[in-house]
Amino acid sequence: MLVVMKAQASPADIALVCERIQVLGFRPHIIPGEQRTAVGITGNSGPVDPAEFEQLHGVAEAIRVSKPYKLVSRETKPESTVVFVKGVPVGGEEIALCGGPCAVESRDQILASARAVKAAGGQLLRGGAYKPRTSPYSFQGLGEEGLRYLAEAREQTGLGIVTEAVDTESIDLVEDYADCIQIGARNMQNFSLLRRAGRAKKPVLLKRGMSSTLEEFLMAAEYILSEGNYNVILCERGVRTFADHSRNTLDLSVVPAVKTLSHLPIIVDPSHGTGKRDKVLPMALASVAAGAAGLIVEMHPAPERALSDGYQSLDPEEFAELASECRAIAELLRSRRRVPVGAL
Amino acid sequence: MLVVMKAQASPADIALVCERIQVLGFRPHIIPGEQRTAVGITGNSGPVDPAEFEQLHGVAEAIRVSKPYKLVSRETKPESTVVFVKGVPVGGEEIALCGGPCAVESRDQILASARAVKAAGGQLLRGGAYKPRTSPYSFQGLGEEGLRYLAEAREQTGLGIVTEAVDTESIDLVEDYADCIQIGARNMQNFSLLRRAGRAKKPVLLKRGMSSTLEEFLMAAEYILSEGNYNVILCERGVRTFADHSRNTLDLSVVPAVKTLSHLPIIVDPSHGTGKRDKVLPMALASVAAGAAGLIVEMHPAPERALSDGYQSLDPEEFAELASECRAIAELLRSRRRVPVGAL
Amino acid sequence: MLVVMKAQASPADIALVCERIQVLGFRPHIIPGEQRTAVGITGNSGPVDPAEFEQLHGVAEAIRVSKPYKLVSRETKPESTVVFVKGVPVGGEEIALCGGPCAVESRDQILASARAVKAAGGQLLRGGAYKPRTSPYSFQGLGEEGLRYLAEAREQTGLGIVTEAVDTESIDLVEDYADCIQIGARNMQNFSLLRRAGRAKKPVLLKRGMSSTLEEFLMAAEYILSEGNYNVILCERGVRTFADHSRNTLDLSVVPAVKTLSHLPIIVDPSHGTGKRDKVLPMALASVAAGAAGLIVEMHPAPERALSDGYQSLDPEEFAELASECRAIAELLRSRRRVPVGAL
Amino acid sequence: MLVVMKAQASPADIALVCERIQVLGFRPHIIPGEQRTAVGITGNSGPVDPAEFEQLHGVAEAIRVSKPYKLVSRETKPESTVVFVKGVPVGGEEIALCGGPCAVESRDQILASARAVKAAGGQLLRGGAYKPRTSPYSFQGLGEEGLRYLAEAREQTGLGIVTEAVDTESIDLVEDYADCIQIGARNMQNFSLLRRAGRAKKPVLLKRGMSSTLEEFLMAAEYILSEGNYNVILCERGVRTFADHSRNTLDLSVVPAVKTLSHLPIIVDPSHGTGKRDKVLPMALASVAAGAAGLIVEMHPAPERALSDGYQSLDPEEFAELASECRAIAELLRSRRRVPVGAL
Repeated sequence: MLVVMKAQASPADIALVCERIQVLGFRPHIIPGEQRTAVGITGNSGPVDPAEFEQLHGVAEAIRVSKPYKLVSRETKPESTVVFVKGVPVGGEEIALCGGPCAVESRDQILASARAVKAAGGQLLRGGAYKPRTSPYSFQGLGEEGLRYLAEAREQTGLGIVTEAVDTESIDLVEDYADCIQIGARNMQNFSLLRRAGRAKKPVLLKRGMSSTLEEFLMAAEYILSEGNYNVILCERGVRTFADHSRNTLDLSVVPAVKTLSHLPIIVDPSHGTGKRDKVLPMALASVAAGAAGLIVEMHPAPERALSDGYQSLDPEEFAELASECRAIAELLRSRRRVPVGAL
Repeated sequence: MLVVMKAQASPADIALVCERIQVLGFRPHIIPGEQRTAVGITGNSGPVDPAEFEQLHGVAEAIRVSKPYKLVSRETKPESTVVFVKGVPVGGEEIALCGGPCAVESRDQILASARAVKAAGGQLLRGGAYKPRTSPYSFQGLGEEGLRYLAEAREQTGLGIVTEAVDTESIDLVEDYADCIQIGARNMQNFSLLRRAGRAKKPVLLKRGMSSTLEEFLMAAEYILSEGNYNVILCERGVRTFADHSRNTLDLSVVPAVKTLSHLPIIVDPSHGTGKRDKVLPMALASVAAGAAGLIVEMHPAPERALSDGYQSLDPEEFAELASECRAIAELLRSRRRVPVGAL
Repeated sequence: MLVVMKAQASPADIALVCERIQVLGFRPHIIPGEQRTAVGITGNSGPVDPAEFEQLHGVAEAIRVSKPYKLVSRETKPESTVVFVKGVPVGGEEIALCGGPCAVESRDQILASARAVKAAGGQLLRGGAYKPRTSPYSFQGLGEEGLRYLAEAREQTGLGIVTEAVDTESIDLVEDYADCIQIGARNMQNFSLLRRAGRAKKPVLLKRGMSSTLEEFLMAAEYILSEGNYNVILCERGVRTFADHSRNTLDLSVVPAVKTLSHLPIIVDPSHGTGKRDKVLPMALASVAAGAAGLIVEMHPAPERALSDGYQSLDPEEFAELASECRAIAELLRSRRRVPVGAL
Repeated sequence: MLVVMKAQASPADIALVCERIQVLGFRPHIIPGEQRTAVGITGNSGPVDPAEFEQLHGVAEAIRVSKPYKLVSRETKPESTVVFVKGVPVGGEEIALCGGPCAVESRDQILASARAVKAAGGQLLRGGAYKPRTSPYSFQGLGEEGLRYLAEAREQTGLGIVTEAVDTESIDLVEDYADCIQIGARNMQNFSLLRRAGRAKKPVLLKRGMSSTLEEFLMAAEYILSEGNYNVILCERGVRTFADHSRNTLDLSVVPAVKTLSHLPIIVDPSHGTGKRDKVLPMALASVAAGAAGLIVEMHPAPERALSDGYQSLDPEEFAELASECRAIAELLRSRRRVPVGAL
């Protein structure tokens, strides 16, 4: 259920609607729009009677939402959401570019990475302090030490920090240090972690699970929004199929599909999406052309010495070329269409 | 690395090997066998020199293990493991049969379920008190109240209790109440949860992830064993493919594949594996014929009124038929082959 | 559209219905049943008016068929079809067992294979004279020479011959020599070949395509039936998924699914379905337990010297064990259920 | 085996090499290059001794080719191949754009389609006269009548004609009328049809099969080249996966992967690749950005009245927009990289 307020509705009108929702035992979500505000209702197990709200002052209409996801839906909020990560808009006029190594390996490595991202015109730095690894015997990340290096890199370069929280234990520290909390593909349906991320004060970057349908992907985002955190960036990173020429199959058609169904911005990870260095540039360009709001790309000062994912990491020079090419395509599309990249 | 002791090695010999492993900064795992004991080494990032151990008293040989998984490997432990859940052997002479509803819905429902399982000759009762749900707005389980009902069902029937822990928060309570902790498919690579399960005092039932390779499945089990809990039951529950005549594609060939590579018992969930009530019986029979050590089957006293998964739940009569048919096949195979069902 | 005749309808009544169908520009298909005869109508691009037939003498009712497949549907013909291959019933009381090498390699090889199949109690001999190969540079089969050797093997042993027709050129010869024409997985949607097989005088064994849905599989069979050949045996042989522990993923749940939707018998090929010798026996047992009407299994007198598929071929001893075990399971199921294996 | 000639080798030197190959019972394939000519050898079942050729006059070296595909491999021919379809280069400086309806439905429809393609700046017209349909009861195409309409459309507009041959029967007529013979996804491993196409005088457009690996795709092309027709255009059209937001999953990473391994041009079909009209434009742009040499797009003068595939067909206005946007991206990439679009 979505209660759409009239354009001229006052804050008091909106407050009254929220109060009424709470009295009924449900949870209100205020969704500001350019023209008018809507109030989403969650927590109801069955349908709610629109008549409960249509007589309240300032209410334009109360409409049933037909999809299983509500708060992430474009039905609920027609305008595209711009998520700000340390002031960097994701889903806005320009593509957002996030680069950096798979894992924070040392102070020197992450500072060198940050300088390379900055030099290439990137705005965000990635790097894992906590790494989900298939083997219990593999390097699991530097932990808080890694977070401190990331913070230092931010200080030196001004880049916003994107780093992964792998469980409800580590997320407190990640929330403290990072500008954006990444939820990895393996955790896309770790519902406890999603709920906790929904109570975080920082934006969340949610990666699509390896065999996730679009509906499951949006429902995972819904978990975060339903707890009150509306700053969610979706990320396609390849799905698992029979195809063996790439590590995963990058499913770029999910980009326009998300943009039709949801107001949330979607970016692409062409590094995990292909798993091969020489495929990263062409698939990055393709992502931007398909309408992605940004890219998250693995880059390492010395890929051949990386502790993990070296085979899919660009070096600084390749990253700079990627950044330049992607911006050129984004600029071309914007100039021809006269609409922001992140919009429909 | 695996240090294989001579048949006549003394406990003191074994203790010395363990001490040496710890001195080197690694972790020893004592693996008792019928003929002789082996000591697994984990925690080493690179290869360990066999010469470190081959001169110690009582050591037969020190061998490199070629697979990324060590403790779960049949190379490490040639004899099939029998896991006991409240005294019920899984992986032993007979098939283990676990039945019950998707979710614990009420005291009456779970007690009726338990009586039906018992009447059909089942040994274990399933039922979720914590439910991982795709939608944040769906029924999420009764929590500890559900666990109490399960405990009461155990008291009344003597059945062992299998129930899911969905996160590191709920696992403490689940460990207290249950006889076997289930890790669901969505959490197969929730490594924090796996580590915590590895420190639990109860056996663990680990379900294969929806797009998990066999190696990833075994590595997830390795996480549990690497923390000291060697009582792990693997469970095939269907994988995600293009096929649309069943909810998932039950991949029964993983049963003999697991039995070749690992000593751990593997059972099958034909309910989630097919997602359709009329496919459960034939696929249960097929599972036993393929060599599964047991079955976990959704059964509800009144499937048409189930809060979840009703379309794939058997009623008590169908469950009793399934139990009887499966036992007949298991008995036939045992009589013809003169080997325990769970063995190679 | 399906015109169902009354139980007491005469041949003349049926002939009149067929004539009326032809007058309307469609094609009649007489489908005899135990209780009464039905006449299927194909060739209509849109719906046909039931009133055209309901007034004719001997007609019980004219019903619309809701599935895209008509002639293969159980709605059209409720009784299970038994297909006879050189007198061997497939879909009847007992499981049909077909064995033999991937390819006919020499006279000696195929005669030795035939003797081994016969000795194990198998009824049908497989062996490719025309081989569809991924590489144009691989052995493509002996052609007619191979067919002659198969015919000689039949003479010596009495086994029925199942061999593949790879194109509309080779099918004439295959039809002459073979007792059952195999259409391979790669040709499941080679519609010209299907139509030609539909005009053949011999039964057809149709293998499921590597990424075929159940509906596409049944529609491919419908092509054959729509040309007048109602003797079609379906065959599950594994589908293509991400799973890498087997060459293909054997989708056994398609067996009960086919039996619900279609009257045609379905058998299983556990050799291609797994691609590994040590998985063939357990999956063969599982197939029979799941309700398959038979098996087609690769067996070679000397697998280690086979020109193709040696890694998945059984030797004669392993084949004999498989035959014996499978018959035991089929016998058990029949004795407990008191229904023919091939029936629902 | 590949015999690489010296730069200064004479035609007589090359002829002698070919003769020697034939004497050995193999087949020579002359592959002209910019710097020097190579002669491929096929027809050998095992390895050939390089010494057979290295002493011949004009021979630089004889090298073993490590991939199962030979003639399609970039190892064999480092320069990218440009295929000319009625004078239109595919794989050259500019992207080739092919548009038109799924099926030829009438003279008016195909002439209107051709005019719209021409007006949008497209160079090639598509349209099926023979349609492979899942159901035997669906519209199967106009046959030769459809081919005549296509020929008339070519006369009126000068567009090259691309149309499908579905079997070895129809390919003779298709070869007569068309400028490029399409082999559909379902026929990608119809080896008889591939061989026949390899003897055709016209270029071939080969679509990737629904569950084809890259290696199988290239081997299918190898079948065509091995018969002497080197004018093959590869086409990605989506593969089958679990994802359900699009009809198929367009696997764009195959574009750079093909360009690394093969000299053949690869184009993309975003219409079948997505199966939804509103995804065609973004995925067309993505295809060009990923490096595709061209596009084949379904366009219908009145999509809502199309006999097939209307839901994924653009109207003429949408097609013109697509053409203009794609050319702009191609132009941008060319200007920045200073290399032809079709090159590496």
